[in-house]
Amino acid sequence: MNNKSYQAHHSSFGAYASFLLGKIGQGGGFSLSDVRSPNKNIYIGYKNRMMNLLPFANLDFGNKLAEFGLEASENKNDEKINLFNEDSIEREMKWASDSWKAGDLSFKIYSPFDKVKDIDTLTKEEKKLLLAPGFIGEITLDNSNNPGEAEIIFGMQLDENARLLSDNDEFSLLGGAVDTRYGFGCEASEEIQENIDWMTLLEMMDKKSPLLNKLGNEVVLRIKVKPYSKKTMHFAFATYQGGNITSGIKSKFAYTELFEDLEEVMEFLLKNKDYYINICDSKDKELEESKLNEYRKFLIAHSTHSYYANTELLLDKDNKYLWVANEGEYRMMNTFDLTVDHLHWEMKYHPWTMKNSLDLFVDRYSYDEGVKDLEGKKYKGGISFTHDMGVANMFSPKAYSSYERSNLSGCFGYMTAEQLVNWVLCGAVYALNAGDNEWVNNNLDLFDKCYESLLARDLNDDGIIDTDSLRCGTGAEITTYDSLDISLGQARNNLYLAVKTWAAYVCMEDLYNKLGKNEKAMEMQQKALNLCDSLVEKFDVNEKYIPAVFESGNESRIIPAIEGLVFPYVIGDKDAVSEDGRYSKLVKVLKAHLDTILVKGICLDPVSGGWKLSSTSNNTWMSKIFLCQYAAEDILNMDFTEEEIIEWDRVHAFWQTVPCNEQCATDQVHSETGKDLGSRLYPRLVTNILFMK
Amino acid sequence: MNNKSYQAHHSSFGAYASFLLGKIGQGGGFSLSDVRSPNKNIYIGYKNRMMNLLPFANLDFGNKLAEFGLEASENKNDEKINLFNEDSIEREMKWASDSWKAGDLSFKIYSPFDKVKDIDTLTKEEKKLLLAPGFIGEITLDNSNNPGEAEIIFGMQLDENARLLSDNDEFSLLGGAVDTRYGFGCEASEEIQENIDWMTLLEMMDKKSPLLNKLGNEVVLRIKVKPYSKKTMHFAFATYQGGNITSGIKSKFAYTELFEDLEEVMEFLLKNKDYYINICDSKDKELEESKLNEYRKFLIAHSTHSYYANTELLLDKDNKYLWVANEGEYRMMNTFDLTVDHLHWEMKYHPWTMKNSLDLFVDRYSYDEGVKDLEGKKYKGGISFTHDMGVANMFSPKAYSSYERSNLSGCFGYMTAEQLVNWVLCGAVYALNAGDNEWVNNNLDLFDKCYESLLARDLNDDGIIDTDSLRCGTGAEITTYDSLDISLGQARNNLYLAVKTWAAYVCMEDLYNKLGKNEKAMEMQQKALNLCDSLVEKFDVNEKYIPAVFESGNESRIIPAIEGLVFPYVIGDKDAVSEDGRYSKLVKVLKAHLDTILVKGICLDPVSGGWKLSSTSNNTWMSKIFLCQYAAEDILNMDFTEEEIIEWDRVHAFWQTVPCNEQCATDQVHSETGKDLGSRLYPRLVTNILFMK
Repeated sequence: MNNKSYQAHHSSFGAYASFLLGKIGQGGGFSLSDVRSPNKNIYIGYKNRMMNLLPFANLDFGNKLAEFGLEASENKNDEKINLFNEDSIEREMKWASDSWKAGDLSFKIYSPFDKVKDIDTLTKEEKKLLLAPGFIGEITLDNSNNPGEAEIIFGMQLDENARLLSDNDEFSLLGGAVDTRYGFGCEASEEIQENIDWMTLLEMMDKKSPLLNKLGNEVVLRIKVKPYSKKTMHFAFATYQGGNITSGIKSKFAYTELFEDLEEVMEFLLKNKDYYINICDSKDKELEESKLNEYRKFLIAHSTHSYYANTELLLDKDNKYLWVANEGEYRMMNTFDLTVDHLHWEMKYHPWTMKNSLDLFVDRYSYDEGVKDLEGKKYKGGISFTHDMGVANMFSPKAYSSYERSNLSGCFGYMTAEQLVNWVLCGAVYALNAGDNEWVNNNLDLFDKCYESLLARDLNDDGIIDTDSLRCGTGAEITTYDSLDISLGQARNNLYLAVKTWAAYVCMEDLYNKLGKNEKAMEMQQKALNLCDSLVEKFDVNEKYIPAVFESGNESRIIPAIEGLVFPYVIGDKDAVSEDGRYSKLVKVLKAHLDTILVKGICLDPVSGGWKLSSTSNNTWMSKIFLCQYAAEDILNMDFTEEEIIEWDRVHAFWQTVPCNEQCATDQVHSETGKDLGSRLYPRLVTNILFMK
Repeated sequence: MNNKSYQAHHSSFGAYASFLLGKIGQGGGFSLSDVRSPNKNIYIGYKNRMMNLLPFANLDFGNKLAEFGLEASENKNDEKINLFNEDSIEREMKWASDSWKAGDLSFKIYSPFDKVKDIDTLTKEEKKLLLAPGFIGEITLDNSNNPGEAEIIFGMQLDENARLLSDNDEFSLLGGAVDTRYGFGCEASEEIQENIDWMTLLEMMDKKSPLLNKLGNEVVLRIKVKPYSKKTMHFAFATYQGGNITSGIKSKFAYTELFEDLEEVMEFLLKNKDYYINICDSKDKELEESKLNEYRKFLIAHSTHSYYANTELLLDKDNKYLWVANEGEYRMMNTFDLTVDHLHWEMKYHPWTMKNSLDLFVDRYSYDEGVKDLEGKKYKGGISFTHDMGVANMFSPKAYSSYERSNLSGCFGYMTAEQLVNWVLCGAVYALNAGDNEWVNNNLDLFDKCYESLLARDLNDDGIIDTDSLRCGTGAEITTYDSLDISLGQARNNLYLAVKTWAAYVCMEDLYNKLGKNEKAMEMQQKALNLCDSLVEKFDVNEKYIPAVFESGNESRIIPAIEGLVFPYVIGDKDAVSEDGRYSKLVKVLKAHLDTILVKGICLDPVSGGWKLSSTSNNTWMSKIFLCQYAAEDILNMDFTEEEIIEWDRVHAFWQTVPCNEQCATDQVHSETGKDLGSRLYPRLVTNILFMK
């Protein structure tokens, strides 16, 4: 991991707010109800003989001065500032932290996360610890070898106008904020000087007395460090979005019930800093001590950071909690085909959020609609679920997503079949792994309805969905792989979706067995076996692969054929995914398929060597690569060498840290260059939690 | 008034939100907690044989298509759209409305305002009518002569993501909104089709069925109009900023206690549309029927629109109302040297807002500080008030403004003396004209303190303030005219401020007389007479003017020497400002002064002919020109010809509608060209309410 220049999210649980930092020269800052970097100057460093700063500021003072009608020649301060270059910095992205070392300075941001018990069972204090919208930053200056006094410099460019925290005399805090919404602060102390101005860093260079231009937008703290000493300071980074924040369903941030305002959040964070640091240290250690290679460790850490930046816990008018995982740059809410990928993370850390999403899909975002065959003949359909629940804090109306539209066969088309399968998979995994019997009992009829709906979509009774929802109008259904080519983009008669459909039957088989409903379990097994046979029949024995789409002579080779194997596996049904189990024929064929296609020029990119989901598209998705790597390694037991795996992981980590380094965790990349093609600042890459045993 | 292309604010009382429209080609849209135009496309027009739109949209579809990776050649729709040009439009900016006519279309925005009784005495329903954050738009299509069906087109580009109002089934509204914060809507009807997409106007050109891309940011309504008929539609334009909105003093918008959300506001506005339209019609008529020339009518209307866009009524944690007039592009809150200019407006329409500001200045934004003479020797000082109460919804700390800083002698210096005089003037005018005896009795000690403070600032006992506050440090006090040259910028020994100081003594003289405190009244009269003598002594009998600053041989000629005359006049003390009254010497000298300087090349710009506040600066301020025109015409009875006055007014109106036409009411302009130099989107120009008899 030589690359240190990449933007990363830093955030807390459910606040839909983050602080971005990490790409050299890009700046960063706070993002609220969004995940994009404002790319403002961040000033973190120290002053001894000269000013030394981490390279997260644009110090083109000539331009800055010109904005204010002054001449650049008036000031040569930029010559007195050393911006550390990449070579002189150490960076460590860990699971729950991110830190930089340069010269005598170290700076670390803690992004706490851990297992969270059902929110309804938490005490108020536990809720406050969990939901405080912010986190801790830690800065240390080692002035041990310096006979002179030094200063820690800590500050940032905020919005057009900002304020000093000392202006609020109800609290004993120093730092900067933008009105009621966000800021950074530390405990007040005599040794800290607050500065605010338009070009604070520039103006304060040769000054002793504080800058106090209250119209300014840059707040910079100077903190004295005595000769021959070492000093560590802690800062709270906090946000506060008050009032009703969502339309459609009226709700506010859950933390607004617990904290009055921004300053109260900061004070709480600082008071409990040890709690948060301990949590982070323990998560960092856990990942560090895992047997994973360094690239995988990095990918897991980076993905986790972007996942939490997208999380949002709301409280509706009836004091009911609502969980929203937002969709990166697209800001769609609880996109179901992301939910099914977040499943593995949420089941491990907070299964109640999965339940929360599944329930809202049932209560508000389900619908019942007929289907049509290729000739347009109409048939009875059944229940399914919307693609998402809205966009940008706007819950969409009942039974409708913000994404899906009629009369399309590509992007923005309906994903009716895919989301139906996703509910069954998420529901069964939650039912079997969370031990929530009450939920299972309440939702048995839903599984029945879903089963009926699956049957209705399979006209020729081979198990494979071969219809499109009538909601498509003149168009056709698509899958989550909307921006890939038809090999993964078309839902009807699609290999990827067929294997996931098989997995849905297997998971229901297991669920009914667990419930003692053996007859129903057998029925599901019959459907799964039937589908298994159908898929095996599609196997091209000469070319040794299954074509991506069973229509129009399609010959694409796709890796996500094996995605569906993950679900039976995670509910512990090893037999279902074993070469010797009851579905051995399918497992063997999928293994042979993967073996055939996972070669350079087919599903390994001939230039980069990275995984390429489809032989006919250069658009490849990190979240799905991780999922399929897991299926290949742990389920299919492919005979990859350790070197092969490390090289793949190295390429995938390189993509995130170099070509995608401005966009935090990025899902869609070009398989040749790794350049971002979409799905930037994305939560979905946490599928790689599966790598953690 | 030939110019029709200028941006204007449209808003309601105290919502600190507006809808901007009017500059051709610039677009417009909603501005919240700000007054700047987002310059988004606004689509208002109709479709019969072709699409006809008012020219408030940028229809460069080539560029738009390129953003989405499409080629311009794919679409030639721009050829089917007629954007009316300036010549084919009629525009009428009236006092409480703004309207456009073009082709078969008329569109009108109503911005209601009227006298407002003390907010604490209003019923809930009266409060709702007053504070509903929004207003009515009216569109009429005259299809009487058309044998075919036509469509009214009404829509706009909103934020990155938007929603349809029909998505919320609790209300029967159609239109568009951005999450919970702002939007436009009308009553639902079968004849209206809602469209949402990224390039809605472009995409819907050749379509019959509605566009329903819920990820879109453009909402456009199509409203059927039958052949040979005429149709009028009403829209609500509404905003909603929930939660605590200010820091420093924690407060929320007063309307949030009355309305739950945006839709409730819209529904209320539409239900009460006749009430609002009647108010506006009546105000429009009142201005229309006044004897003022067309330029003055326009200037009053335009200024009123920008004033209300800057108003903000808050409710603090103790349910106390707080009034804030924000400062245009600078966003400072209750800037006192604007308050004293808003005085005339607020005394006429809502004197309780003036009281509210004065009280907060006393309670939180007053301070007591010593003074220094030119040599730096320190003396006892006295009470004064801060320049402002904060910026951008951030109340500044007790006793400090966001603007003032130590050790400066120009912009951002202290305005201690000026704000002291301003409190006395506002306080006395409120006390005498509002008939609020309780307030007068509560504040008698404040007038005493202010009197003592005035005395303390006059070391040589000639009545003229000749000291600087110790808060200045090494700097010196400035006046409101911060960006002009020293002729108006320096507070010490300044003619403009000296006449205002005289006015302060006169107003206190009248106040004490009214209260039967004759001894005190006589004391004030003595101070006023003394100051009167001192100023008369400064009159240069050869050159027939009083120099702007009584230091360093200053020879600037300034119009605002006469500004102070307004205050005794508005409290009805005609004697004080009469050539035959007790201060006749001063009044005569000021008249002679104005007569001398109001010539081309001195205080009339030699190129434009407009009023130029200072002979030595090209920066001239509209708000102050109006005030001084009023003093010259109504108080000094200068023998201007009707033609002269109309020509001056024509120039001043031209400045607003051509060189400043992107910036709504603009205060600081270049006297030669009328180009904006600062103070854009400004509330202060309502000094011209004095023109309305």
